[in-house]
Amino acid sequence: MLIVKKFGGTSVADKERIFNVARRCIEDYKKGNDVVVVLSAMGKQTDVLLAQARDINPNPPKREMDMLLTIGEQTSVALMAMAMDSLGVPAVSLNAFQVAMHTTSNYGNARLKRIDTERIRNELESRKIVIVTGFQGIDKADNYTTLGRGGSDTTAVALAAALKADACEIFTDVDGVYTADPRIVKNARKLDEITYDEMLDLASLGAGVLHNRSVEMAKKYGVPLVVRSSLNFSEGTVVREEVNVEKMLVSGVACDKNTARISVIGLEDQPGVAFKLFNHLAKHNINVDIILQSVGRDGTKDISFTVAEDAVEDAVAILERHKQSSLKCDKIDVEKNVAKVSIVGAGMMSNPGVASKMFEALYDVGVNIKMISTSEIRVTVLIDEAHVEKAMNSVHDKFTLGDL
Amino acid sequence: MLIVKKFGGTSVADKERIFNVARRCIEDYKKGNDVVVVLSAMGKQTDVLLAQARDINPNPPKREMDMLLTIGEQTSVALMAMAMDSLGVPAVSLNAFQVAMHTTSNYGNARLKRIDTERIRNELESRKIVIVTGFQGIDKADNYTTLGRGGSDTTAVALAAALKADACEIFTDVDGVYTADPRIVKNARKLDEITYDEMLDLASLGAGVLHNRSVEMAKKYGVPLVVRSSLNFSEGTVVREEVNVEKMLVSGVACDKNTARISVIGLEDQPGVAFKLFNHLAKHNINVDIILQSVGRDGTKDISFTVAEDAVEDAVAILERHKQSSLKCDKIDVEKNVAKVSIVGAGMMSNPGVASKMFEALYDVGVNIKMISTSEIRVTVLIDEAHVEKAMNSVHDKFTLGDL
Repeated sequence: MLIVKKFGGTSVADKERIFNVARRCIEDYKKGNDVVVVLSAMGKQTDVLLAQARDINPNPPKREMDMLLTIGEQTSVALMAMAMDSLGVPAVSLNAFQVAMHTTSNYGNARLKRIDTERIRNELESRKIVIVTGFQGIDKADNYTTLGRGGSDTTAVALAAALKADACEIFTDVDGVYTADPRIVKNARKLDEITYDEMLDLASLGAGVLHNRSVEMAKKYGVPLVVRSSLNFSEGTVVREEVNVEKMLVSGVACDKNTARISVIGLEDQPGVAFKLFNHLAKHNINVDIILQSVGRDGTKDISFTVAEDAVEDAVAILERHKQSSLKCDKIDVEKNVAKVSIVGAGMMSNPGVASKMFEALYDVGVNIKMISTSEIRVTVLIDEAHVEKAMNSVHDKFTLGDL
Repeated sequence: MLIVKKFGGTSVADKERIFNVARRCIEDYKKGNDVVVVLSAMGKQTDVLLAQARDINPNPPKREMDMLLTIGEQTSVALMAMAMDSLGVPAVSLNAFQVAMHTTSNYGNARLKRIDTERIRNELESRKIVIVTGFQGIDKADNYTTLGRGGSDTTAVALAAALKADACEIFTDVDGVYTADPRIVKNARKLDEITYDEMLDLASLGAGVLHNRSVEMAKKYGVPLVVRSSLNFSEGTVVREEVNVEKMLVSGVACDKNTARISVIGLEDQPGVAFKLFNHLAKHNINVDIILQSVGRDGTKDISFTVAEDAVEDAVAILERHKQSSLKCDKIDVEKNVAKVSIVGAGMMSNPGVASKMFEALYDVGVNIKMISTSEIRVTVLIDEAHVEKAMNSVHDKFTLGDL
């Protein structure tokens, strides 16, 4: 078996943890497997480097920022190779040049284009554990790039795809994917399996175990993912195309408090109004989430939508600028203390009544729904942030997701 | 003009110093020069990395040690590029892969084989300051290597040679090369010029401003070196093939306390004895410095020689092992509290009487000479370590090297 194992920054934060990871990898190696390990920078090293850079230049050139940040993973992999060596196992660390990991030139948020596998295969053939820097790549002019948020997960999945690995294990500080955040829903249960699509919806809705880009890539190349804990040996959650057990109606309940609602009231009811509105926002790279349009008074219409909380000020400022000229609306209304609660499940595609069952659960505990959005495998509602806990628990119970 | 400027670790130890270096380089840049900057790791970062590695593995694989150490210079160059950017000057940092700097595979002590200049030339042509990681290279299999002691100086000189630079400035924390160590000889004077050969003898004798490898390379490729202070704007010392001013008889006085004398007493006076003795030491990589052979009693001979202090124990142990068998000597005698004092000067080749003038200076202050060694441009004596200060001052005065 060829196994790709990815460990995040907290898993390699100090000497003891580095050795824990080393032993864990060596266990697989000694069973005769080929082992490729992908590591992030140690603990808070990336934050330290960011601070160091900003102290020198509040707005550092992105090309140089990536040049600086890549040293984080290089430190991790070199120390890991030394740890494995001291445990008597041959290992070799490789950075983005040595692999090589080819990306676009979009510094700070590059996309992987191609991974050379010759060096890795040669090292594996000489029975070494291969330790690869996550998060980083090189562009066609040999500049360092970084992959942005969740970059090391992406590196691991891409490597697993390129090497046609038999498994890709993503180690985190949780046991796997849960039916809901255990801090909010006490009887939340760990899922044994989940589909890529469910995982994608959960990730984008704030469950946050895996970054969307890595799940998308795993889906695209059919890489079987396992999300599991670096702290214990429990089985974790398998993410794959089709789950083997009978599809559950709903796999999980997710919430996202990082959201705010903006309503544009009294727009003219004529073609092109929605286009103008969202085009202004798109030009400033503001991502809009749920959109709801309703008929207003006197032949006008209202458009409401949600944006991430840190984009609210910008969004409102842009809309205010165009309020008189192109938008011609009466007023712009903002509500910040809102949250999205969602149910996700591949099973709901063929099961009518799932949405209404969720609404019933909210009605049971007196939670008012402000907006609704649905996809094939997801129902999302916007509610008061203060009601998140009781809403999630009620929905979780309604679909009997908890431990029995 | 194309200028290569090299700054050591103390020159980039913190934000303030990084900006000092940046401004210094920008000054040359704004005069229209092409500027290539070579940097070492910041302050004590290399020591920190070494300690971090040894904590994980007391005997880390050298390949991985180099992988770890190279992040030091990469940090320096990235931060420097950010500093220059914040001062409004375009700059680009390049590591050993990006240049590329090709070396042998001798991890920890690699030798430069070839430097590609295309990337650097392209960046210079687009009017960027190019900041290159010192000390590091890559071998033919794309592994990182490091150049060992004085590595960043070597990088700078090699780059200057490859780019046919008009000047190569080595910035240190001293003003230049002195006629003697100013801490020992109060009226020591800074030299305006010195030849490569004199510099080589001074470096090997403990003056320690420039590492021998970089001076040898500068001599080989005719790179004009300037040693100057990063703390002030004084002119520094030019190192070149021939000095322009009338050759001084003696350029400087150097001392080296890291030495010990070993005497092997009562060897048989027959052919092959010296060979056997030094062959035993050479097989164990022990470098021998001054050698003196004298006739002993009853048809025997004595051989004395000096070694570095940290090699004494090993050397004596090896000789004791062969004392009875191959050496057949009476006893082995060791003296540790000794020091070498040397005068160096290209002028002494054609001037007889220089050595005796030095011996006179020592006699003036009652210093006994234990051993003598000479080369074409150097006279070295071994004396009691306790007498170093008065010996150096007396010799320095005798040749009127001091400030007038």
